[in-house]
Amino acid sequence: MSQTLTQDRDTVSDISVLDREQAQRNYTAVRAVTEALCRPLSAEDCLLQGITETSPPKWHLAHVSWFFETFLLHEYLPGYRPFNPRFRYLFNSYYEQLDGFHPRARRGLLSRPSLEEVYRYRGWVDEHMQTLMADAAPEQWPQIALRLAIGLNHEQQHQELILTDLKHNFWVNPLLPVYREELPVPQGRAAPLHWQEYPGGVQEIGYGGSGYAFDNERPRHRAYNGPWRLASRLLTNGEYLAFMDGGGYTRPELWLSDGWATVQRLGWKAPLYWLRQDGDWWQYTLGGLRPLNPDEPVCHVSYYEADACARWAGRRLPTEQEWEVAAADRPVAGNLRDTGLLHPGVADGSGLQQLYGDVWEWTASPYTAYPGYRPPAGALGEYNGKFMCNQQVLRGGSCVTPADHIRASYRNFFYPHDRWQFMGLRLAEDAE
Amino acid sequence: MSQTLTQDRDTVSDISVLDREQAQRNYTAVRAVTEALCRPLSAEDCLLQGITETSPPKWHLAHVSWFFETFLLHEYLPGYRPFNPRFRYLFNSYYEQLDGFHPRARRGLLSRPSLEEVYRYRGWVDEHMQTLMADAAPEQWPQIALRLAIGLNHEQQHQELILTDLKHNFWVNPLLPVYREELPVPQGRAAPLHWQEYPGGVQEIGYGGSGYAFDNERPRHRAYNGPWRLASRLLTNGEYLAFMDGGGYTRPELWLSDGWATVQRLGWKAPLYWLRQDGDWWQYTLGGLRPLNPDEPVCHVSYYEADACARWAGRRLPTEQEWEVAAADRPVAGNLRDTGLLHPGVADGSGLQQLYGDVWEWTASPYTAYPGYRPPAGALGEYNGKFMCNQQVLRGGSCVTPADHIRASYRNFFYPHDRWQFMGLRLAEDAE
Amino acid sequence: MSQTLTQDRDTVSDISVLDREQAQRNYTAVRAVTEALCRPLSAEDCLLQGITETSPPKWHLAHVSWFFETFLLHEYLPGYRPFNPRFRYLFNSYYEQLDGFHPRARRGLLSRPSLEEVYRYRGWVDEHMQTLMADAAPEQWPQIALRLAIGLNHEQQHQELILTDLKHNFWVNPLLPVYREELPVPQGRAAPLHWQEYPGGVQEIGYGGSGYAFDNERPRHRAYNGPWRLASRLLTNGEYLAFMDGGGYTRPELWLSDGWATVQRLGWKAPLYWLRQDGDWWQYTLGGLRPLNPDEPVCHVSYYEADACARWAGRRLPTEQEWEVAAADRPVAGNLRDTGLLHPGVADGSGLQQLYGDVWEWTASPYTAYPGYRPPAGALGEYNGKFMCNQQVLRGGSCVTPADHIRASYRNFFYPHDRWQFMGLRLAEDAE
Amino acid sequence: MSQTLTQDRDTVSDISVLDREQAQRNYTAVRAVTEALCRPLSAEDCLLQGITETSPPKWHLAHVSWFFETFLLHEYLPGYRPFNPRFRYLFNSYYEQLDGFHPRARRGLLSRPSLEEVYRYRGWVDEHMQTLMADAAPEQWPQIALRLAIGLNHEQQHQELILTDLKHNFWVNPLLPVYREELPVPQGRAAPLHWQEYPGGVQEIGYGGSGYAFDNERPRHRAYNGPWRLASRLLTNGEYLAFMDGGGYTRPELWLSDGWATVQRLGWKAPLYWLRQDGDWWQYTLGGLRPLNPDEPVCHVSYYEADACARWAGRRLPTEQEWEVAAADRPVAGNLRDTGLLHPGVADGSGLQQLYGDVWEWTASPYTAYPGYRPPAGALGEYNGKFMCNQQVLRGGSCVTPADHIRASYRNFFYPHDRWQFMGLRLAEDAE
Repeated sequence: MSQTLTQDRDTVSDISVLDREQAQRNYTAVRAVTEALCRPLSAEDCLLQGITETSPPKWHLAHVSWFFETFLLHEYLPGYRPFNPRFRYLFNSYYEQLDGFHPRARRGLLSRPSLEEVYRYRGWVDEHMQTLMADAAPEQWPQIALRLAIGLNHEQQHQELILTDLKHNFWVNPLLPVYREELPVPQGRAAPLHWQEYPGGVQEIGYGGSGYAFDNERPRHRAYNGPWRLASRLLTNGEYLAFMDGGGYTRPELWLSDGWATVQRLGWKAPLYWLRQDGDWWQYTLGGLRPLNPDEPVCHVSYYEADACARWAGRRLPTEQEWEVAAADRPVAGNLRDTGLLHPGVADGSGLQQLYGDVWEWTASPYTAYPGYRPPAGALGEYNGKFMCNQQVLRGGSCVTPADHIRASYRNFFYPHDRWQFMGLRLAEDAE
Repeated sequence: MSQTLTQDRDTVSDISVLDREQAQRNYTAVRAVTEALCRPLSAEDCLLQGITETSPPKWHLAHVSWFFETFLLHEYLPGYRPFNPRFRYLFNSYYEQLDGFHPRARRGLLSRPSLEEVYRYRGWVDEHMQTLMADAAPEQWPQIALRLAIGLNHEQQHQELILTDLKHNFWVNPLLPVYREELPVPQGRAAPLHWQEYPGGVQEIGYGGSGYAFDNERPRHRAYNGPWRLASRLLTNGEYLAFMDGGGYTRPELWLSDGWATVQRLGWKAPLYWLRQDGDWWQYTLGGLRPLNPDEPVCHVSYYEADACARWAGRRLPTEQEWEVAAADRPVAGNLRDTGLLHPGVADGSGLQQLYGDVWEWTASPYTAYPGYRPPAGALGEYNGKFMCNQQVLRGGSCVTPADHIRASYRNFFYPHDRWQFMGLRLAEDAE
Repeated sequence: MSQTLTQDRDTVSDISVLDREQAQRNYTAVRAVTEALCRPLSAEDCLLQGITETSPPKWHLAHVSWFFETFLLHEYLPGYRPFNPRFRYLFNSYYEQLDGFHPRARRGLLSRPSLEEVYRYRGWVDEHMQTLMADAAPEQWPQIALRLAIGLNHEQQHQELILTDLKHNFWVNPLLPVYREELPVPQGRAAPLHWQEYPGGVQEIGYGGSGYAFDNERPRHRAYNGPWRLASRLLTNGEYLAFMDGGGYTRPELWLSDGWATVQRLGWKAPLYWLRQDGDWWQYTLGGLRPLNPDEPVCHVSYYEADACARWAGRRLPTEQEWEVAAADRPVAGNLRDTGLLHPGVADGSGLQQLYGDVWEWTASPYTAYPGYRPPAGALGEYNGKFMCNQQVLRGGSCVTPADHIRASYRNFFYPHDRWQFMGLRLAEDAE
Repeated sequence: MSQTLTQDRDTVSDISVLDREQAQRNYTAVRAVTEALCRPLSAEDCLLQGITETSPPKWHLAHVSWFFETFLLHEYLPGYRPFNPRFRYLFNSYYEQLDGFHPRARRGLLSRPSLEEVYRYRGWVDEHMQTLMADAAPEQWPQIALRLAIGLNHEQQHQELILTDLKHNFWVNPLLPVYREELPVPQGRAAPLHWQEYPGGVQEIGYGGSGYAFDNERPRHRAYNGPWRLASRLLTNGEYLAFMDGGGYTRPELWLSDGWATVQRLGWKAPLYWLRQDGDWWQYTLGGLRPLNPDEPVCHVSYYEADACARWAGRRLPTEQEWEVAAADRPVAGNLRDTGLLHPGVADGSGLQQLYGDVWEWTASPYTAYPGYRPPAGALGEYNGKFMCNQQVLRGGSCVTPADHIRASYRNFFYPHDRWQFMGLRLAEDAE
């Protein structure tokens, strides 16, 4: 599987020196992975939308193509005729500046176009994209290369969502379908937790390199931190069970007010995908139902749960600055999608572990604009900027994040009540 | 198409003299029609559930088989092993006495079992049903024959729902998919409306024959009616447009209180499936979008709309007694499913027209138990009895009702706000 | 109390021979009772609206005056100037033909006008009504007398609602305030239940006399009934407890489908106003919290509960025809408001008991128009007619109904889920 | 009015040197103001709760007394017997660690206890508080003095809420009642806007003094800012009208995603309390309806509107650090409650104006814990800490904030969609 789902690192993001041949290779590689991810799925599977947040695979397949069509082919390929003019509306996700979009909650009600037709749509877009990459005028190439990088990174984000959303879409079926029967199961024992200390001071965060990064990672800027410590690994299921056994879900004093209201309203008693059967905990995974492994990182918890558990532990969540400073000089490696686990693994090594991959780590930082942040002009400016309210930053990628997609400055963001992403936590504390 | 979708009349309902061979032929014929109806649909189409009320074709295909499995095979076929024990839960519709059921609103989220597997499930049930019909002990045959009749009539009801629900499930797709491209389009001019008069007195209604009828049509009983008149045909789109042009949707004095509240809340301005484009009205049909034909009967109106339109016309809706007395001696014939129109037709004949077929006719009668009504014991008692509140009776079948399924005493029932069935109205008035 | 809250019987409704002096006496008497009912309440109590359905006493006080102002003073008193022109909007209840109304759910948010000002408003209306009654032209008097009768009956209905709504408005306060401390408490043992039989045939129901009756009681008309039996008294709390002990609220087979859904959604486990404390049942009354008396009639149950309990008992609810035929020749007497109990009493007599008063009796009859029914023209036509859908008929009045307001043909109506009225049930069964 | 509603500055917060006599004077003064604010209101007015967020004055009067009873009398006054033990539940606002509380949405349904009884409750608490302040053991005094300071500041917050909530509670009444007829109306012309520049660097914010401050203002800590500029005054109604005329409420590109969704869902077209009549804008104030004054600061806008308007203006909102650094050396003076305007005034002076008073200023900063923040132990820890999610910080106080209650480090916080507080905005921009 890893062969199918991985490209050479840096091919996608190294846009400053991107030549056309490399661009074409990148494009072909990324597009192929998306389809490989959907190959085990039937047309029926590809239509599922269990909740408003989880789009059908077919919609993802089409929307990422719509992105290239809208922001590249329509703008730069002379005489381009769309595959189907109605798709402009049907597969727009949320760009308000582009003549409306099909309501998000109804993405699962589109039996037409068929999955087969969506693949033809992909082929049509691919063919014209190759033409564009081959024939674009040199003076347009830098702008095209930039949008191409956005489009490929965008498609990688949707690759992650295809797996994340599918997990939930299958979960609402009492038969608990399995995405891949043959997935390896994490083994080993989690290493004891120790604390890694960092000195305070004025420090720089944000992306400052020449490769690709999203607008919300910029500009690189100074921030002040006091000294802090980070847990050497993610919090495990076993540790989370201790929180639960300690009355975690029944003690309001551990919770944020909105979190406690959410617990009451939704009747939460455990992380998402946990099932209690005959006194034992089980966990639904992309490989099916498994006994809960106490050594794996806890996953599919909301910000509210992560925050309450940290408070119960007498610690706190790290800020995104603390996380990024710690990650800045570490290699981007870990249990990312190319390991093929598609599930968080066990931290059985030493040193600061699991920084990248396994689970997205909730931070204490609300998602806001960096000082001096300016979104791009036009509809592309809606990509990241308009979501800078009511959400929390997560860092580090997960076991379904493409390995060549993540970096130290990468900012993911979700609402505090969201749980369907591969989300967990790492504890932190003040150093003095 | 009419060949595929029709059986000989009376084969289904004539249960008093039903022998085993006839039963087997009936069973085979009804089951084949259900599959023929789904043949033009893809597996994706068969998964659609646009709103809670409209189940996916795949679910209908499975549920009707579940009905035979639950009420016949499990009870009467020694040693029967279910195709999949989880289906008992998954494809139970609403029988509370049978260990729970999958929530109605989530029927469209079952990509598994696949459509193909559901067809295998049907084959498994068919095979065992043939064994049961062939081998059942003579002393059990009368009870089996009765349940078989219920099961076949039940499957015919779901045949109608497959088309009715599909129409709505396609409607929520902006591409407005077409079920059958080649459907004939109604022609001709509606005959002028005249009034058919009936004398009052104590009259009998309800089913009193020896064939099959649902429990809610029984017992036959006496009721008193004053003299009345019925319109000679259904109300047309043209007449409904006059109601609309007369301010129908903006004059509260025409409406029931709950109806007016519904109009305000849902923003109704026309019947369901009507579209206004460039000043013209269009209507979505199973054959696609067509210009609105003023001579066709108005269809897809709620009880509230039917009632308001009748009030605007200075008339009223008939009671179910009035309808049934008028229908009692009329042949069961009309634009039912076997005409292949799958859409209401034009009343261009003479005499009392359109009594059967075209559209279900809203009556002024709330759906209640007939005097002396007793539901069957056990879960089958939930079939009709528990719905006798908050709904209105409709009579006469529609253009998607199987011709051998309807009769004068047949009582359909829906909530006053429902519009997705093929529903319309016939005016009535007091005769003195 | 009975002195304050009662007028001589027949004074209100005998409109055929109504002279002006009698009209003025009636008017004065009815208006005085309304204010007497509110006398024990503070201005704060008079502002309470616990749920949308239960209007504040102050609103009732004003609305009934608005009714006279709108339908009599504005129409018949030359040069009448309203007390406050904004009240036309503020105290309109639901008459859509009268330029809008203040939303029902916000009646409890009107601290202004103050209670004192509302009393001044009442005085203003009273003064002008007296002028109108004294000075109206003879040719207008019949029409004025009719509207006066409607207005006074209307005010009596709101007298009942003042008590009914107040009970619920107090109930939502954890302090459980008491309306009247000194209320007598029902004593005695309920007589054994026996069955009163009635022959079938074509029978007449509906109001046919010369006194006052609402439009929905007319016209008197023929209806056919089979023979039936009525329980000799209302169902008691003790009998209802047996239903509860028999699993009444946990056995779906006893319930209508909509009823069972309501039980699940609202978590019903007992009638409204019942409280379980230390293993005993208590009941909140207008006289405060009392131990549940098993000999009193069960009260504050929905149609769904009444229907389920009757089914559990192997019986059914009577139709409104059956009830009215039984009541037709019985004196209008019983535990109505003038007894001063303000709570259902014990049936410790013999014969057919509790027909009038105690609790409104749910019938099996949906609220529909009688054959030939025509609502009045104009806004007054909205009084009863527009509610003829989705509601059930109740008969006989309750312990908070004015004794001179009820009669055999009187039709009350509420939604099947409503419980806040004084509602209970009498069992019935077929006689053959 | 200013005499009634004001105390000498610093009496409340200077707790480090607080002696008992001063404490008693402070207590008496603050408590008297609360009652003075309610004096123009009837008992009916004092019961109003227009929306869940806006509590009735009576509830505020009782809750602040409950606070002293719960956190001081019960803990420190030996043998204290509560006025009414049920009040512990009834007037607890949201402290989960204290045995439950009456649902917030039902505070307006408590006609009992009467307003008069609540005043008696206040008297009871006052009497025992005086005893406690006089007699407490010296070793307990520091702890009592601290809680007293919290309680008095808490009561001042509710003084502000009494006016803020009342404005909305009156607003839902179509009669638009007036709190004070005689309020002065702001005059003058707003000074031209200019920009005040601040250098960047590591700067300290948070409360570091010896007086009273809330836990959420602590600890004082370092933060890094780049250089910035602040608008010299608040944004005016006139400037906001230009935003509206420029399509502010119809251009999604100006809005945060959640903000745009809110605009659509709630149909916002202008700030809260603005009314359009005959082509002119009017504004509802505590002094009644007035023509909109373009020179006054815009008020009653949500964070979403403030943010969109700033974006439209090509600027941004300041961070709370930027605001506090600018305010640190400025006198606490402005149009606070003691001016008696009870409405934002006109910035007709020079220099940096309107920093304190007029309207709370939305900042770009989500409400989070300062580095090293620790909430107090026990239920008092719920005061501020548990709300540190999903809300935005506002600074500077408003025209209904007590003058001796506000300071540079003071952090108020509301949800981004909230508008019923006196909220507005000051523009900011980067300096380089």
